[in-house]
Amino acid sequence: MRFEVTVLGSCAAAPKVDRHHSAHVLNVREQFFLIDCGEGTQQQMMRAGISPLKLSAVFITHLHGDHCFGLFPLLSTLSLLGRRTPLKLFAPQPMQELLEGFDRYFNRESPFEIDYTPVDTRLHSLIHQTRTLEVYSIPLRHSIPSCGYLFREKQPPLNIRKSCIDRYGLGIAQIAAAKRGEAVRLHTGEVVPNEELTYRPFAPRSYAYCTDTHYSAKAAGLAKGADLLFHEATFADEERAAARQTGHSTASEAARFALRAEAGRLLIGHTSNRYKDPYLLERQARAIFPQTDLAVEGRTYSVAPKFNPEKGM
Amino acid sequence: MRFEVTVLGSCAAAPKVDRHHSAHVLNVREQFFLIDCGEGTQQQMMRAGISPLKLSAVFITHLHGDHCFGLFPLLSTLSLLGRRTPLKLFAPQPMQELLEGFDRYFNRESPFEIDYTPVDTRLHSLIHQTRTLEVYSIPLRHSIPSCGYLFREKQPPLNIRKSCIDRYGLGIAQIAAAKRGEAVRLHTGEVVPNEELTYRPFAPRSYAYCTDTHYSAKAAGLAKGADLLFHEATFADEERAAARQTGHSTASEAARFALRAEAGRLLIGHTSNRYKDPYLLERQARAIFPQTDLAVEGRTYSVAPKFNPEKGM
Repeated sequence: MRFEVTVLGSCAAAPKVDRHHSAHVLNVREQFFLIDCGEGTQQQMMRAGISPLKLSAVFITHLHGDHCFGLFPLLSTLSLLGRRTPLKLFAPQPMQELLEGFDRYFNRESPFEIDYTPVDTRLHSLIHQTRTLEVYSIPLRHSIPSCGYLFREKQPPLNIRKSCIDRYGLGIAQIAAAKRGEAVRLHTGEVVPNEELTYRPFAPRSYAYCTDTHYSAKAAGLAKGADLLFHEATFADEERAAARQTGHSTASEAARFALRAEAGRLLIGHTSNRYKDPYLLERQARAIFPQTDLAVEGRTYSVAPKFNPEKGM
Repeated sequence: MRFEVTVLGSCAAAPKVDRHHSAHVLNVREQFFLIDCGEGTQQQMMRAGISPLKLSAVFITHLHGDHCFGLFPLLSTLSLLGRRTPLKLFAPQPMQELLEGFDRYFNRESPFEIDYTPVDTRLHSLIHQTRTLEVYSIPLRHSIPSCGYLFREKQPPLNIRKSCIDRYGLGIAQIAAAKRGEAVRLHTGEVVPNEELTYRPFAPRSYAYCTDTHYSAKAAGLAKGADLLFHEATFADEERAAARQTGHSTASEAARFALRAEAGRLLIGHTSNRYKDPYLLERQARAIFPQTDLAVEGRTYSVAPKFNPEKGM
């Protein structure tokens, strides 16, 4: 039941020896999603012990190099490793044109398909789903088209309360009906409402990834209720003008976003290298939103399962 | 008087946590040249303490991703750092088209020019020179157009033997004539041959970089006399068939190249990750060419100045 984010890279502008460009891996019950792919992402994945062969989809927020220059090297390595499973790729245009250039010059003999879906960064829409997960785009406000992504578990199917099976002497057809959400008529003629017979085993968890962007109240509304929220904080509060000018956010703006989104926990990152003490930004954000952590490369941030306490009833 | 090569990356195929794709920096008396630029080169430069701002030219051997995917990230960082000096770039086509795509989508506001010269990999020609250095292309044999590069110091200007100035009572005009290579007529009418008056203070040094390639006797002839030779050895001798099939060389082939080129010292690299003991390749090459070292990432290999012992005469 894992739902966890590993931060592979979280630095803005020029990288450093120990700071890498943007990339997160989200593991939802052993489904692996890569979000952004700065230079060196494949080596950062190795350091984190995550095989790139496990990736089922890649999501790119916007086409600035620090968010996507690691993509073609990663795809090349997947070719070398003999991947055969298609890889889904979600990114704004002109990714199509870049992919065509990549295929033409660097990837002529790839054994797997890249299943590319262009993302319209102006729209909040369901762009991808698996059996257990939905992914939505979140329009952001940056110097070029940019969007965040919201990953949310689907409502789990209804479970039957075992205690009810004995109490009402339910048969297989009645159990199946209850699991479909129906009320059940007993052989006595009594009708038992569905809510009495079933429960949701756990509440869906969600992760919102919002970078690069100005503060956007609208985006905060779309990330509503995220258990874990990553929001960029390129600048400290003192550089608010620079943040505005470059289409980025300050630490306090990230915190205000989290507050408005009613997030469970805030991770801030994409911080400028200018801060000798990057925990300054954490302190500034915590003054507004106490459940804030500075994203640390190589570290994994988990959202615990939210099991339904009614299960035992 | 430095003439030294720092190996930033030397692995073939998929990178590892501690092995990077091809990139060497050649420092010739504080002129810095980057040769190949695999993913992560900019961070490897930082690790080696070499500022990318110091680079005066970049040479790419061929357009396989493991030799050039670090180029656009590096150029982006140079833009961010505010470089203004034009950067020379030598690479085979279709680099022009790749650069245009890069400029269009990722590099619209760069403060410096990229001065690109296409390299015809079929030709051995002088492609670049500075006041003190010449760079030649060396055609190689790979699965796509590929060339090596030979960096050679120019002959230094003639120095006057100080002892002769007193002995013959030379004036400024006579000294200048001798430095131009002329014989000098003394006031006694005696003519002193130039060789007696002057000497070359040192012999030119050279570095040849040959990857990716089959063994090529012709290329060895063009790298003749290189003080330091880097030659790829992707495979051990046991994988000769694989080397042939993929357009690469074995350790022994690299050594035979060095022998034929009469190189001073051989560095082998671009070794496959399949070898748990990569020094196996060094041992195989040393059996043929004893002055062989396996290129180690982060290590610097120097060529000492070859001062002319006649100076003291």
